Amino acid sequence: MKLNIAVLPGDGIGPEVTNQAVKALKAIASEFDHNFKFVYADVGAVAIDKQNNPLPDETLDLCKTSDAILFGSIGHPKYDNDPSAKVRPEQGLLKLRKELGLFANIRPVKAYETLLDKSPLKKNIIQGTDISIYRELTGGIYFGEKSLSEDGNVASDLCEYSREEIERIAHLAFKSAQSRKHKVTLVDKANVLESSRLWRRVVTEVAKQYKDVTLDFLFVDNAAMQMILNPKQFDVILTENMFGDIISDEASVIGGSIGLLASASVGDKYAMFEPIHGSYPQATGKGIANPIASILSAAMLLVHFGLHTEAELIKIGVEKSLKLNISTPDINTKYDNITTSKVGDFIEDFI
Amino acid sequence: MKLNIAVLPGDGIGPEVTNQAVKALKAIASEFDHNFKFVYADVGAVAIDKQNNPLPDETLDLCKTSDAILFGSIGHPKYDNDPSAKVRPEQGLLKLRKELGLFANIRPVKAYETLLDKSPLKKNIIQGTDISIYRELTGGIYFGEKSLSEDGNVASDLCEYSREEIERIAHLAFKSAQSRKHKVTLVDKANVLESSRLWRRVVTEVAKQYKDVTLDFLFVDNAAMQMILNPKQFDVILTENMFGDIISDEASVIGGSIGLLASASVGDKYAMFEPIHGSYPQATGKGIANPIASILSAAMLLVHFGLHTEAELIKIGVEKSLKLNISTPDINTKYDNITTSKVGDFIEDFI
Ligand SMILES: CC(C)[C@H](C(=O)O)[C@@H](O)C(=O)O
Ligand SMILES: CC(C)[C@H](C(=O)O)[C@@H](O)C(=O)O
Repeated sequence: MKLNIAVLPGDGIGPEVTNQAVKALKAIASEFDHNFKFVYADVGAVAIDKQNNPLPDETLDLCKTSDAILFGSIGHPKYDNDPSAKVRPEQGLLKLRKELGLFANIRPVKAYETLLDKSPLKKNIIQGTDISIYRELTGGIYFGEKSLSEDGNVASDLCEYSREEIERIAHLAFKSAQSRKHKVTLVDKANVLESSRLWRRVVTEVAKQYKDVTLDFLFVDNAAMQMILNPKQFDVILTENMFGDIISDEASVIGGSIGLLASASVGDKYAMFEPIHGSYPQATGKGIANPIASILSAAMLLVHFGLHTEAELIKIGVEKSLKLNISTPDINTKYDNITTSKVGDFIEDFI
Repeated sequence: MKLNIAVLPGDGIGPEVTNQAVKALKAIASEFDHNFKFVYADVGAVAIDKQNNPLPDETLDLCKTSDAILFGSIGHPKYDNDPSAKVRPEQGLLKLRKELGLFANIRPVKAYETLLDKSPLKKNIIQGTDISIYRELTGGIYFGEKSLSEDGNVASDLCEYSREEIERIAHLAFKSAQSRKHKVTLVDKANVLESSRLWRRVVTEVAKQYKDVTLDFLFVDNAAMQMILNPKQFDVILTENMFGDIISDEASVIGGSIGLLASASVGDKYAMFEPIHGSYPQATGKGIANPIASILSAAMLLVHFGLHTEAELIKIGVEKSLKLNISTPDINTKYDNITTSKVGDFIEDFI
């Protein structure tokens, strides 16, 4: 198979971890005789530094003419601590999601057998957890109108949703549940928010087309609690943009490290693959960043193109690295000298 | 001391648990020779059933003429599953908060020594946790303009904050930190939301008046993760309404049961005390609801009026009941027949 892959390493640890994912994909290409072409482009703080634009036109064009996008991470503390900055790295990521219509962010959460002891949660709570979170990614309060009064004393953000925005991701979630444990949980705040009530109405309607899937509802505050009390109760979680952001980062504690969680962002035309962790600036260049999330994002990319055997091989390599303690310090209690690229090398060699 | 206390038991398990709190307060009154008067009123689904109004005028009037309010819980599944209901129990609670100007909801989160094994989190993670969450309660997306298009296909909620709304709760949080571990963590989403950037600006300014308190910032997604990875890092958490709702319910897992968490909602004129748990309809009338959160809310009420010795006595009674396993099934692995009122009786007798 021939694939043009746009690589957007971004900020902080983004480049280091993305490198390992590219290494894995190159190994897959040579092993299975695929033709993967990688073209790099800037996004985020790095792009602001060079061009004062977190998403330069060339980058967006490249993404639109590629088959898939491999994304690193974005963000820099100098913008976080300057609430008045007009240009910020995150705008690059948000614009990318919007321009490419990547409306569904899919985040698998799994408890790895070999890592059961690494989680802050007790083993019996997490063992067997296997959740797929469907987070809406191009609507809600992230993209609604924002305002700041002239005197700077009143600020607002609008959370808006339309039936279509809800329907399209709901269908993806129900279809996924059909090949899993046949259960969708809608997370919302329908006792307070008008937009959540729309979600509840529309998702209830969509559910009628999937008779083999059960639908249940959970208020987001309760969901944040249930995720820790009993994560095994969940199969597919469907939710809006902001709640999905919070719940999926929270859920990362189940696996023992956010450095393990991959995600796919898909739309009607494009697809992007990225770790759910951030740019982790304190770790940049130290070789301690966990590349597994990025490598598993590459595996999700392969699945997206039907390359299941190839993806499986990456996953087996990952599990093997975990079992043998070829892992970065965040999850390694045995060796403290395994770097980001050593993990990448191991998986590359394995493939 | 003479206190007129309005009692609003509300829905579900509200009446059962509130009863135990009243028992404790009556015991305190007789032991310390105080004059506490209790007047009951309806709120929530129960008030809708009787008067088609979740917050009848008499109830609001009673609250305004009382010294403090003891609140149970609110909510009923028949409204949750009907996204088109015009009148809903939660409106009663929200209106009460707004009308009484209860802008700060204070939620203490503690890991009880005797309950360390009950949490889904590992003992070493939670031991020593002592957090005070300051949640803004009368602003943000809870109270911003809501809209639903004529055809019912587009819905929105506005999240709006003003400088004043942020300042007044920020001062309370910093003052509290001064008598604790001198640290305030602002939880926001300033990399995306205009309202969060206002929070960051205003809170940074307020911090200048409290030189002995350190201020740090955490994005809400990261905070949801840190709360589980390392809850001991927190002292005072300051946040807006919706994030506070989510983070504090999540934090309840630290104590082993949401049935243990009390809260105080305060404003310039009024103060209300309530468990953070909901109406838990499935448990109603079964005698299995944990009354501790409500009883500890009564203790917070006493502290509010400077009755520290009295409050301390209640807290010692609570710890004793936990130690002796005089507790409801949610946290009792030894006996399974201790009812809500047995716990209340024990604490009453102890006092
Ligand atoms: C960087 C930030 C804008 C982003 C988000 O909130 O969506 C990140 O947290 C994520 O989850 O991908
Ligand atoms: C019942 C509901 C409206 C309420 C809220 O969201 O504020 C509850 O969850 C709480 O935290 O007190």
